[in-house]
Amino acid sequence: MVRPGDDLAAVCAEALRAARMPLVAHDVLVVASKIVAKSENRLVPVAQVVPSERAEALAVETDKDPRLVELILRESVAVSRARPGVLIVRHRLGFVSANAGIDFSNVDGTDDLALLLPIDPDASATGLRRSLEVAFGIAPIGVVIADTHGRAFRRGNVGVAIGVAGISPILDQRGSHDLFGRELRATIVPLADQLASAAGLVSGEAAEGRPLVVVRGLELDGATGSSAELVWPPSEDLFA
Amino acid sequence: MVRPGDDLAAVCAEALRAARMPLVAHDVLVVASKIVAKSENRLVPVAQVVPSERAEALAVETDKDPRLVELILRESVAVSRARPGVLIVRHRLGFVSANAGIDFSNVDGTDDLALLLPIDPDASATGLRRSLEVAFGIAPIGVVIADTHGRAFRRGNVGVAIGVAGISPILDQRGSHDLFGRELRATIVPLADQLASAAGLVSGEAAEGRPLVVVRGLELDGATGSSAELVWPPSEDLFA
Repeated sequence: MVRPGDDLAAVCAEALRAARMPLVAHDVLVVASKIVAKSENRLVPVAQVVPSERAEALAVETDKDPRLVELILRESVAVSRARPGVLIVRHRLGFVSANAGIDFSNVDGTDDLALLLPIDPDASATGLRRSLEVAFGIAPIGVVIADTHGRAFRRGNVGVAIGVAGISPILDQRGSHDLFGRELRATIVPLADQLASAAGLVSGEAAEGRPLVVVRGLELDGATGSSAELVWPPSEDLFA
Repeated sequence: MVRPGDDLAAVCAEALRAARMPLVAHDVLVVASKIVAKSENRLVPVAQVVPSERAEALAVETDKDPRLVELILRESVAVSRARPGVLIVRHRLGFVSANAGIDFSNVDGTDDLALLLPIDPDASATGLRRSLEVAFGIAPIGVVIADTHGRAFRRGNVGVAIGVAGISPILDQRGSHDLFGRELRATIVPLADQLASAAGLVSGEAAEGRPLVVVRGLELDGATGSSAELVWPPSEDLFA
């Protein structure tokens, strides 16, 4: 149970030690965005939100609470799709997702709290990485901050990386060769998303049930990058 | 190296034994669609393809070989996006992907072969499942036939399931409860896609480099389903 103001790296180190899973060099720790956001106190009292006119109109269109729509709009730069029950936006962090990734699962009454995504997940991942490398006296490790997104054409939600540190989020294998010596042409591997998605196989979906997953066996070269590399910019996005 | 007419289950069983990875009950075998398609002789000599007028026009629009566009159209039920270098379609199997999943990586000259996806991947998965359960004398196992697809909003290609047997492709956790006893509302987990994507972490992308991946540690209940459950039907698809 992570609370606002907690030292998240210390909480993670303690939990990993308690589970007899101390990190070793080249591990990637996949961290649920929810506990990062809670430690950063990204909780908003819904009762204090005053919806704009635009939020009120969109709330009618989507059959959602106008205060929740207002929070979604504040976290977004564009609306992609609005339908009854559906509000898909481009988040200020660049990716396209439902409800700007805001967790309203605790929102049922008037004194309830909505949980926004972390302010700067790449920075959060970098901080966690540095602190955990020190805590365990090892390096390099990777950190992926994972959120759960729906998909355009396919049912169901999968883990995606919204923050990365210590890994290259994208592996560009164009120019490498296949078994027959032929050059591979269109092989862009979203490594950080694959890790977030694979972690979803064991983390489950039950709130904070298992918000830390250790991926062991990769060969990290210390390369790093920005989670923005994982997202099509609007000018190249054919669908949003 | 799988060739047309090969008994794919026998090839897989032999390869798994040679790698000292005999299947045990509850294993899921993730199989690259490419070797399934080759065993089913889904190879088409490109020189024999006569493009339709529609294919010729779309070839100009997309800057692609008209014979390849013709093959893409024959495997598709609708065009989603056409741009220079890009042709995204709804496949006859229901999903949306670039180039109808056809592998043109061997196509450079006049006597070259394009590789279409398997005719009925769920049926192929079911056949493999039955044969491998017999070969190893165990049950149940799951089989996922995995292809690699791009994503609407995010860069890079990930594994997705185009055929399943022995697993429920979707886990519907709506109605289950979180740590606090609150009902989970929107939790649809595309298990088969998660398995295909996780397998991508170890299978690599180099042609047939590692076309079989064993996932161990799941609890299969023998439930099964159709890969069509993983895909939004056109009437519910907000983006294609």
